[in-house]
Amino acid sequence: MIIIAEKLNGSIPSCGKAIAERDANYIRDFAKKQADVIDGVEAGGFIDVCASVKENEFETMKWMLDLVKEVTDCPISVDSPDVRVCVQGMQYLEEKYGDKKGLFNSVSGEGDKFDVAFPVLAKNNWDVMILLCDDTGIPKTAAKRIEVFETAMAKAKQYGIAENRIHIDPLVEMLCTSEDGIAMVVEVMTHIKKNYPKVHISGAVSNISFNLPARKIVNIAFTVLAMNAGMDSAVLDPLNQDLMGVIFATEALLGRDDMCMEYIGAYRQGIFGQKK
Amino acid sequence: MIIIAEKLNGSIPSCGKAIAERDANYIRDFAKKQADVIDGVEAGGFIDVCASVKENEFETMKWMLDLVKEVTDCPISVDSPDVRVCVQGMQYLEEKYGDKKGLFNSVSGEGDKFDVAFPVLAKNNWDVMILLCDDTGIPKTAAKRIEVFETAMAKAKQYGIAENRIHIDPLVEMLCTSEDGIAMVVEVMTHIKKNYPKVHISGAVSNISFNLPARKIVNIAFTVLAMNAGMDSAVLDPLNQDLMGVIFATEALLGRDDMCMEYIGAYRQGIFGQKK
Repeated sequence: MIIIAEKLNGSIPSCGKAIAERDANYIRDFAKKQADVIDGVEAGGFIDVCASVKENEFETMKWMLDLVKEVTDCPISVDSPDVRVCVQGMQYLEEKYGDKKGLFNSVSGEGDKFDVAFPVLAKNNWDVMILLCDDTGIPKTAAKRIEVFETAMAKAKQYGIAENRIHIDPLVEMLCTSEDGIAMVVEVMTHIKKNYPKVHISGAVSNISFNLPARKIVNIAFTVLAMNAGMDSAVLDPLNQDLMGVIFATEALLGRDDMCMEYIGAYRQGIFGQKK
Repeated sequence: MIIIAEKLNGSIPSCGKAIAERDANYIRDFAKKQADVIDGVEAGGFIDVCASVKENEFETMKWMLDLVKEVTDCPISVDSPDVRVCVQGMQYLEEKYGDKKGLFNSVSGEGDKFDVAFPVLAKNNWDVMILLCDDTGIPKTAAKRIEVFETAMAKAKQYGIAENRIHIDPLVEMLCTSEDGIAMVVEVMTHIKKNYPKVHISGAVSNISFNLPARKIVNIAFTVLAMNAGMDSAVLDPLNQDLMGVIFATEALLGRDDMCMEYIGAYRQGIFGQKK
């Protein structure tokens, strides 16, 4: 599982406060803690950096990026709803630090996003997160999401972006208002895995539990089912020990961890099951 | 999910001690606590009673059964590796308490077990747990386990035992020595569900994590995957709040809990997410 570590995001209240107060230690601390976990995961991952501020977004992101680079070489995910800010963030890391790896987070079928992002991504080897929505919003059916997906893949191909650089966020919506559980999103995942086995299936795990009590429980159960359906990349909190433990356990249960060596190793490293 | 509550089992050290000391309060206390959880589960369940003593097993079981009956009307699972003790326990509950519902736990293809148990079960409406092993031991392949299953089903049919009274334990083995994760047992479950949709798929959840650290994490991930493959009955600890929460969450994720009402109800009843 590729871990996209989510703690450095201005929309999280404590992180938003740290950003507003330019609390450099907060940023460095969470960058380091998350990187330590990612180091213990075979598939690796990215430290997501999302300023989530209304003004001077790129300036704020730059301040965060420099702090993250002070403490870790872990690849970074430049995260903004504004595709142009992602381009700026990516180019900043390429130019100042020579980062050859990273995640462009994100693009979608909305407006000119593909045509802004893909020409820049065509020149490097960064990964890219693609959300399955377009100008009509988030499609309600699996068939329509698959259509957005196929459009995105055609565009990516046109720009020569290899399949294994692409992470698809099928846009998991909250369970509490769903009528069929996660059947629709599993259908989308199954289609992707079957037709493009090298494409990563990703998503923000915690969206599923919005408005429900005991959210971590729902996130855990969702993660197991999504991994079973092909999810191999996820935006999540790597400091959530139970969630990380469940990811390692699921890899073993799905037959991808011979004799549970990865599971046992991660336990010994303290990635899960140790602290309380 | 049908809950077969596992805490009253002499092979659990604290319970074994309580049995040896004839500590009636221990038995009553765990019977009541487990029954309270089962009451909050739509599919219901059974309080398992397993003496696990070398001598006078039925006498010990009887002492336990009377204590359980003092505090709850929840159906009981009479549990012994000795099929004749199960028969005695079942008949005791039928005669003394008029129990029309309960679980005979268990039979298998070993020796004359089917022919001892099924004629008695033919006369009542109790459920029965069937383990997929025979005189050759626990089969190593899915094909051989399915063969044992088909033999058991033929025997059950011969005695007129309805499919919906049957719980199949496909015999989950420890993950730490498995080469394909749970692929083999999922294959067995899928066969059963496809060909006999009314038969319950069951099993002892915690066997999967034997010899691994942080066992509860593995048990949780296994439970989600097994439910996805059709498991709708399980021997487990209903006082394990995280496990119970994950079961309710998985039902919702699999589309069986409209608007998460069961999940939210169970949370409000304190079945999970409340106590620490």
